[in-house]
Order: sequence, then structure tokens, then C-alpha cells
Amino acid sequence: MKIYKPTLFLDLQKCKQNIQRMSEKVKKNNLIFRPHFKTHQSIQIGKIFKEFGINKITVSSVKMAEYFANAGWKDITIAFPFNPLEINKIEVLSKKIDLNILISSLESAEKLIDSTNISLNYFIEIDAGYHRSGILADEIAQIERAIHLLSQHNFKGFLTHSGNTYNAQSTNEILFIHQQTTLIMKDLKSKFTTQFPKIIASVGDTPSCTLAENFENIDEIRPGNFVFFDLMQYHLEVCDLANIAVCVACPVVDINRDRNQIVIYGGGIHLSKEFIMQNGMKNYGQVVKLNDLDWQESAGSSYLITLSQEHGIIQASDELINEISIGDIIGIIPVHSCMTANLMGSYKTLDNQIFDHK
Amino acid sequence: MKIYKPTLFLDLQKCKQNIQRMSEKVKKNNLIFRPHFKTHQSIQIGKIFKEFGINKITVSSVKMAEYFANAGWKDITIAFPFNPLEINKIEVLSKKIDLNILISSLESAEKLIDSTNISLNYFIEIDAGYHRSGILADEIAQIERAIHLLSQHNFKGFLTHSGNTYNAQSTNEILFIHQQTTLIMKDLKSKFTTQFPKIIASVGDTPSCTLAENFENIDEIRPGNFVFFDLMQYHLEVCDLANIAVCVACPVVDINRDRNQIVIYGGGIHLSKEFIMQNGMKNYGQVVKLNDLDWQESAGSSYLITLSQEHGIIQASDELINEISIGDIIGIIPVHSCMTANLMGSYKTLDNQIFDHK
Repeated sequence: MKIYKPTLFLDLQKCKQNIQRMSEKVKKNNLIFRPHFKTHQSIQIGKIFKEFGINKITVSSVKMAEYFANAGWKDITIAFPFNPLEINKIEVLSKKIDLNILISSLESAEKLIDSTNISLNYFIEIDAGYHRSGILADEIAQIERAIHLLSQHNFKGFLTHSGNTYNAQSTNEILFIHQQTTLIMKDLKSKFTTQFPKIIASVGDTPSCTLAENFENIDEIRPGNFVFFDLMQYHLEVCDLANIAVCVACPVVDINRDRNQIVIYGGGIHLSKEFIMQNGMKNYGQVVKLNDLDWQESAGSSYLITLSQEHGIIQASDELINEISIGDIIGIIPVHSCMTANLMGSYKTLDNQIFDHK
Repeated sequence: MKIYKPTLFLDLQKCKQNIQRMSEKVKKNNLIFRPHFKTHQSIQIGKIFKEFGINKITVSSVKMAEYFANAGWKDITIAFPFNPLEINKIEVLSKKIDLNILISSLESAEKLIDSTNISLNYFIEIDAGYHRSGILADEIAQIERAIHLLSQHNFKGFLTHSGNTYNAQSTNEILFIHQQTTLIMKDLKSKFTTQFPKIIASVGDTPSCTLAENFENIDEIRPGNFVFFDLMQYHLEVCDLANIAVCVACPVVDINRDRNQIVIYGGGIHLSKEFIMQNGMKNYGQVVKLNDLDWQESAGSSYLITLSQEHGIIQASDELINEISIGDIIGIIPVHSCMTANLMGSYKTLDNQIFDHK
């Protein structure tokens, strides 16, 4: 691999397999598939989704909605609480495409009423246990009040994100959260289907969408991270290391053989400062062996124990330290591929295509 | 403050005061001042340094050296281990400006010999206790061997970065590390001044450069973060909250009054995922009250307890929760201003100038 600075490699084959696997599950369960594009933020990767027949997407900001609308996407949900300060941009966009926004509280509904006369499509965001944003599912009076307030707007259904699966201690706990969430969403939807027969229930975190097989009573899923996966998903036992479709190639710039440490050009501004805890130590990224056309687990366990702005420090296995030289390239599987992809701004495929997104 | 999305505000007055304070210390101690520009990465902020008579700078990558060389800077040290894969860019740049590179190991010296015939200016990077990169100060044989190997190049002196001050538990510990470092650098330099009378000793972390008054036997300092400071420096008692020159203004998009929590548009892709531990909790950024022309400590303590890609969750004081509405703007003092500035890519001054750097 001919590079001279930290470079985000994309294995297109793995990426396509990840999309295909989720597409098949969606078809088997008769779901709407609205993948979250915040993970890759890439028009070219979006085109791969199109090849699988996907025409509805999720994004996490108005800016990202504008970006993908300009690239031809016509049906976009902004899965982020409605920001009244962006109402003008939302109005413009909603005239061009099928845009869905999120109402996360009664106060949010009131702000929408105050800020526009245009009829918008909206989901009510439900807090099914993650406690980040949204109305608690049992606050029926608030939900009714919000829907009533927004009668001039188009109620699309209930949406939730069970981000608490990322804190689960086992795959069983992920499946349990998924089951609880889907039951909550089913109950809630059933309370409103008489009045609003077309509403849907939308869920969407990668851990539960990947592991679960039962999507009864759910209409739509919105996972994002599955397109690449990462070390965090691997440690949650959501994917295999071999499913991870991105890897940051980093030049080796210093080696301390006494401490079994390798300094790479690759730091917090490339990988992000996310870490997982592993045997009581922080792990900022896993070392893999880079070949010309792929990468594979390296012999012995070597991983990033600390990151500065541009430096990364690898605690290396004896095998790695014995074979490495300054000027070599080391592959790092990122802890959180969404954050790494956002920082890197560009992908290089293994057949040397460049996918820029910034 | 009229904004609609996360916006990095720069208080130019505080920024200039921070530069002035360090400039005065440099003059008083008869030092060379080579500020690290990785913190701000901004040509416009660079111009403020020029107003203080500064014409030597430090950067952390070849790319950043090219960027500032193109903006007219003629004397640049790349304070990052020599990356042989960038030798062509280094050669080109060294013909245009006074460029200094870092040799961090004997192996690094060997790689330089193998990769160029052009004579380059170099510092030997010394590990004075931080254990990130560089040759240990007592490895005199290795240092001599490296200098001997590099006889066709121009030996500029010894350089170290005592990043271990960031892990100090007290200001006394920071001063102790500074004292140890300067003694190590003095001893080392004295061993080589007969043969190389012009070599200098260069140190440069913000905590010790800000707190220390004694710079005997040190020739050059290279602090960077002091230009803005941040929450990390404040918690190290290196600066006051009032010295911090940057603040991310973030729209409020959801409020949970039962949990005293506020959801802002402002997440890991704006602030970075750096945190400090405070009373056993993670703090990803401190809330301040934004006025039209400045910001100030808000009543009661409110801070970010978690960040997603675009969401931030504030645990708010009663005072804050009682006065806040969706659509308001909240100020966040970042934990690590270097990482935040890198992510945001642009500053807005309080008098509405825009300083882009990406």
C-alpha cells in the first residue's frame, strides 16, 4: 500500500457484504430499510446502497440532509431533535424532497408551531430507555398533546434509538433491550393506529438490528454503523473482526524496542479519542497486518494504548516488534468507525478509488 | 449571538492577552519563542503572533508545515518524529524555508541517511520522562552515534516535550517535572557544546511554560495550547476560566426537566470525545453563559456528561434548567481546545470575523 500519511482504507467487498446481509434481513422481515448515512457520509457509498434498491435514508443533521438531497436522495429522515434555528433550511428542503423531522418533546412541538406555516412530516421521538432525547413512552398525555398541537403537520409515526445497547454486557442483554423496545413501540403505535392508520414504528441501532431476528410489530429499521462495523461492535460481539470494512493505514515513525512500543503517524485527529476498555487498559485501536489487497489479524495482540493529536502509541507483541521498521505501514481497526470516517474525510478503496466526503 | 449550528467562538482579546503574557515571559527570560501552531492551525491567528514579533513556529506534521510555509512563515520546526515516507515533501520544503525536523531514534537517523542526499536541519528528540517518543537522555552512546551518522546534516540541538505534565496531580508536580526536564536538557547540551557550540535546548508544553518562572539553561520554548487554553488546563490549575479564549456555541434542541438534562446540537464531531474526570463523573465540556460580546461562568455547575456524534447531554443546575428553552444557545468551554479547533475548522470572533482553517 503506497501511502505516506494516515489513510482510511475501505474494503468494498466487506462493505457490500455488510449491506447485503442487512438488506436480506430487511426483506425477510418485510421491513422498510432506512439506513443511517452519518456513519459513512459518502455519496459514493450511498450509490452502493442504491444498487441494493434502497431509496430512503436517515441522517443526523440538516446539513447532512442537504448534502444527500443534492446528491439525488428524495426521502430523508433527520434523526435528530428538531432545531428551530434551522427552520428556514428545513422549509426549503421539505419543498424539494420527502423530509421527515423529529419532535422530541412537547416544547419541541410548540416551537415548530411557532416557527412555520408550512406542513412538515414529523415523527415523535420516543425515549424507550436510552434517556438521551425523546418523550418517555408512557407519557401518553404529552404525546397526545404534541400530536394535537401539530395537527396541521403530517404525523408519520414513532421513532426511537436504543443507544443503550452500546452499554450492554452481553448479546443477550442487547436482545433483551431490543425486545423491550419493540414491545414499547408496538403498544404505543396500537394506541394511535385507529386515528392514524398509516403511522409506522421505526427503530435503529446497529447492535440490535444486527443480532435480532424478531422484528414483529416494527415497520422500519435505521442502523448505520453496520456498513463498516468497528472495534466497539466487535467487542460487543455484534460482528467478527473480518466483517470490519475500514482500517486506517499509518506510517511507523519511531520504535522503542525496550518498551515494545511503536509510534505511528496517526493520532486523535485521525482516529478520534474513543477507546474501549480491554483487560483494564484503554484500547484506541487494534493493529492488523496490511497486505496489498486486504488486512488480517496480526500475530499476537497489539493495540493503541494512547493517542496525541498526531501520534499514536502501540503496545506491540514480540512478533510485531521483531518484524517492524520505521517507514513501514501499520493497519489500525478504529474503535468507532463513524467518528474516524468523519475525521478522515476520505476513503481509499483497496483498488485505489478515492471517495471524498468533505 | 446569531447562529443556527455549533459554532466555535474566539475571544480575540483573551487570545491576544494569552500571547502577550507568554511573549513577556519569553523576553524576560531571554528565550527563543517558537509557539506550536497545531492548536489553532489558523493563518489569521498566526498573524496575531507576527504582531508580537514572532517569526519561528512549531507544527506537528509536514502538511501543516506546508500550509504555514505557503502563508509566509520562513522558520518552522516539525515537532514530530521524522517520517521517511514524506522525504520528498521535506526536501522541497527545506529548499524554500528554514525547516527543522526531528530525529527520535538511531533507527530514524539511519532512515534519514538512506533517504536523502540533501543536508537538512535536525533536532535530536529527547525522552525526558514522558515516554512517548525520542531517545532517553542517558543513552549518550546512541545520541553520539546518531549525530555521527548525520554528520552531513545540520545538528540544531536537543528538543523534548514533557507531555507528562498533563498527568500531574498538582502545580508543584508540574514545576517538578519542568525542573527535572530542564536539568536533563542542560546536562545533555553541556556534553555536546564543545563540539557543537551553536546547539540549543528546546522544551515546550503549555503547563510548565505557563507556570514556571525559571528557564535557566533552556534556549527555546514551544508551547501551543496557551493561545486558547481549555478546561483541561483549567483543571490542572494552569489558567483561570476567564483566560480560555474559545467557546463552542450550541443550540438547545431538547430539555428533560425531570432529569435536569439539556440536549444540545453539539457532539463528538464538534467538541471531540475528550473528557476530564470530575467528582467521579466524565465532563466533556463546561457550560458558560453567552452574552453578545463575551461569556462568563454560569450560575451553578452544568456540564456535558455524554456526547454522541451530533448530540451533547448537559447535566444542568436548577438555575440553568429554569431559564433555558429550546432554541436558546448554550456556550461550552471545550475540554481540549486543540482537538475542538481541529474538528470545527473555523472560528467566529466576537466581532463576527470568520477565520477558516480548513
